[in-house]
Amino acid sequence: MKNHIAVYPGTFDPITNGHLDIIERSLKLFDRLIIAIAENPVKKPLFTVDERMRMVKESVKKYKNVTVESFDCLLIDYLHKRKAHIIVRGLRVISDFEYEFQMALTNRKLAPDIETVFMMTAEGYAYLSSRFIKEIARLGGRFDCFVPPNVAKMLKEKF
Amino acid sequence: MKNHIAVYPGTFDPITNGHLDIIERSLKLFDRLIIAIAENPVKKPLFTVDERMRMVKESVKKYKNVTVESFDCLLIDYLHKRKAHIIVRGLRVISDFEYEFQMALTNRKLAPDIETVFMMTAEGYAYLSSRFIKEIARLGGRFDCFVPPNVAKMLKEKF
Amino acid sequence: MKNHIAVYPGTFDPITNGHLDIIERSLKLFDRLIIAIAENPVKKPLFTVDERMRMVKESVKKYKNVTVESFDCLLIDYLHKRKAHIIVRGLRVISDFEYEFQMALTNRKLAPDIETVFMMTAEGYAYLSSRFIKEIARLGGRFDCFVPPNVAKMLKEKF
Amino acid sequence: MKNHIAVYPGTFDPITNGHLDIIERSLKLFDRLIIAIAENPVKKPLFTVDERMRMVKESVKKYKNVTVESFDCLLIDYLHKRKAHIIVRGLRVISDFEYEFQMALTNRKLAPDIETVFMMTAEGYAYLSSRFIKEIARLGGRFDCFVPPNVAKMLKEKF
Amino acid sequence: MKNHIAVYPGTFDPITNGHLDIIERSLKLFDRLIIAIAENPVKKPLFTVDERMRMVKESVKKYKNVTVESFDCLLIDYLHKRKAHIIVRGLRVISDFEYEFQMALTNRKLAPDIETVFMMTAEGYAYLSSRFIKEIARLGGRFDCFVPPNVAKMLKEKF
Amino acid sequence: MKNHIAVYPGTFDPITNGHLDIIERSLKLFDRLIIAIAENPVKKPLFTVDERMRMVKESVKKYKNVTVESFDCLLIDYLHKRKAHIIVRGLRVISDFEYEFQMALTNRKLAPDIETVFMMTAEGYAYLSSRFIKEIARLGGRFDCFVPPNVAKMLKEKF
Repeated sequence: MKNHIAVYPGTFDPITNGHLDIIERSLKLFDRLIIAIAENPVKKPLFTVDERMRMVKESVKKYKNVTVESFDCLLIDYLHKRKAHIIVRGLRVISDFEYEFQMALTNRKLAPDIETVFMMTAEGYAYLSSRFIKEIARLGGRFDCFVPPNVAKMLKEKF
Repeated sequence: MKNHIAVYPGTFDPITNGHLDIIERSLKLFDRLIIAIAENPVKKPLFTVDERMRMVKESVKKYKNVTVESFDCLLIDYLHKRKAHIIVRGLRVISDFEYEFQMALTNRKLAPDIETVFMMTAEGYAYLSSRFIKEIARLGGRFDCFVPPNVAKMLKEKF
Repeated sequence: MKNHIAVYPGTFDPITNGHLDIIERSLKLFDRLIIAIAENPVKKPLFTVDERMRMVKESVKKYKNVTVESFDCLLIDYLHKRKAHIIVRGLRVISDFEYEFQMALTNRKLAPDIETVFMMTAEGYAYLSSRFIKEIARLGGRFDCFVPPNVAKMLKEKF
Repeated sequence: MKNHIAVYPGTFDPITNGHLDIIERSLKLFDRLIIAIAENPVKKPLFTVDERMRMVKESVKKYKNVTVESFDCLLIDYLHKRKAHIIVRGLRVISDFEYEFQMALTNRKLAPDIETVFMMTAEGYAYLSSRFIKEIARLGGRFDCFVPPNVAKMLKEKF
Repeated sequence: MKNHIAVYPGTFDPITNGHLDIIERSLKLFDRLIIAIAENPVKKPLFTVDERMRMVKESVKKYKNVTVESFDCLLIDYLHKRKAHIIVRGLRVISDFEYEFQMALTNRKLAPDIETVFMMTAEGYAYLSSRFIKEIARLGGRFDCFVPPNVAKMLKEKF
Repeated sequence: MKNHIAVYPGTFDPITNGHLDIIERSLKLFDRLIIAIAENPVKKPLFTVDERMRMVKESVKKYKNVTVESFDCLLIDYLHKRKAHIIVRGLRVISDFEYEFQMALTNRKLAPDIETVFMMTAEGYAYLSSRFIKEIARLGGRFDCFVPPNVAKMLKEKF
């Protein structure tokens, strides 16, 4: 029987209930899941890598077989370092699809041993995006229903 | 360690090199793969179920851990009967995505224990469709580059 | 104050919970709603016009200001006859959008006084389609969660 | 009979003939329309809020039942303050659709009493975007055919 | 200087003002244009090949350097027979794009010497489709604004 | 016989194998091709105009009938200056399509004498984008397979 390590990469700025949905679904399919936080200085995240590490770890501590790490290199190089060969990505909408399609084919060209699998986010989270949540927070709206409680607390402190 | 049985359903009328690409990729991810041929009388397939069983079995005989079956019930009922909980689907283009999205969410509503995972077809097969291949065959064009040799032979006999 | 009559056209073969969601939303916006069942012999509906009239009337009897009619002419001619100038359509996914876009612009060309407005179906119904429900029913699956009880009963009798 | 107040929100940087088309169409459907200019400092608009207020007011002064306001809070909070429950949005192309879809579902989650309705921009304006108009203006091109005369004048003064 | 023969294939059932728009645009780019009517018995056209030959010839008689032919083989085989190496296709909407994309890549695989070029239909015709026009005609609506006069006459005779 | 000058505009930051594929295909259709590098200070290119001029010239020196120029005005004004009336654009994916559609229709409104033609990038390059290549280079990945050798060398010097 194979031992499948899957990597779920993202900026997680912040992690949302939609991300947690994909994490739960992935754990039904793969033996071990590494959540890989892209440091991503180009996107100028609202939360520092340390804050994101902390919020993700807190949010997933109830799941077994999950580890949380950060990386600042090419995703496929990170997978090779971890001896993982599966990338997990959530699909919500068409525009996701196109970007993900380009990413997956570029990665496949550079690392044919690595496979990207896509999973559908639960219908209730299909419209969720970290960007909208930050915008809602900035304008003083309610966001408790979109993120886990520990993240809601950190978001409140930022604004 | 879990024992993951995945089901790759389709009409396979006929099976193409694009299907075979998805089959090969799935075998890197899951311990066992069942190729489930939908009898699908509504679509009025060119090949009978028996012909499709024969052509698929011949096309995948080089792979280990693959079995080929046909089914004429709801896909999720078929999975339950086989004690499988993973559906594999290939994504090529946007219009696939929408149809697959609707199917996956409908299935999830009816059977929350079953998960659909999507994989990208290799770029060289992204444009391939069984429908185009049959149209090319009907009009006397070349189709050897799109299907395995045993299928090419069966297609030639049909037209 | 204006008196706005809106028309919600469709084949309703059968009417689903997604249609009912759009009907409820429309009633918050317009003073009166006519549900217009297209006889649509080209599509070869599963239910006759009479059956569809009966099932829709039963399904919407709890709403005020709603009437149910059938029509077998050009939609815009039907609206002119009813002195209505608003068409309501539900949007679920991209492929809907394109078809609806073409329809709306064609109708606008033929009848510039008539306006089409689009509403988003509730997220829980975004994947619902009459076609999938009929397919599920044909294959012996559960469909009670997708249609109102009276329609579920009529579907069971058909298969 | 209900008294329907609809809100047409946007950055209007600048207002285009496409926006005016949606405004005219909305007035056929709703009793009163509030054009709500998002202050939107994140997008770094070319025109200040005051300039946009002035240009929109001038552009719509021929219409009755229209008021122009600016807002710097969450859109749904603004609607609640105005006791309005309808958001009007124009749809031009697919990419609009996806963004609007996410926005509408997020807003519905936060404020279920508010409904978003979509209208198709006239075919002649489907390709118009404020962003393209600014780019054309920056490069010294003609833009008189895309915006009302008072906006054309203000654009000329900017570049 | 090269002598470029382009082929504009289609079912033309019937030819519309949108098709004529693409024909006019093509003539600005290529030295000679062959309009190639696909006999297409699978689609069960409303008009016979002879009728379509007649209606297209009549509709394009004002253009120089245009010939009209029918074909019942693979499109690329037809181009080879005519020593042409350019296929012209009109793009209106996204769903066109996907189908055309698949067709173009399939054709390129089979005949790398043939290139497909796409042109945008004029905005006023973007929503036009032969299918809608036939549906409008069937239901007794006006269609004179969508087709040339000789086609309108033939459509009237059919219904 | 007409003398067709086509213009292939872009930022080319950097030029990729996908661009070269479109250039080769265009040369089969048009008598002369001008590659027009948009100076595009808004996008803050990685390479200066001079560097891009140099890298594009080097990359296309094997082709006849190709010239390379830069421009900093409206594209259609540039074409008028060069007495060219054809714009060539490559299509890869849906999101391209929408942007290109809007651009082409805006340009057509401003300059009806200019026609935009679209060509499909070879399947092997459909996922390629200058933006991804720069991201890969920034993160220390391999990019030799995506760009011509002279561009690979310049990219290495940048990072």
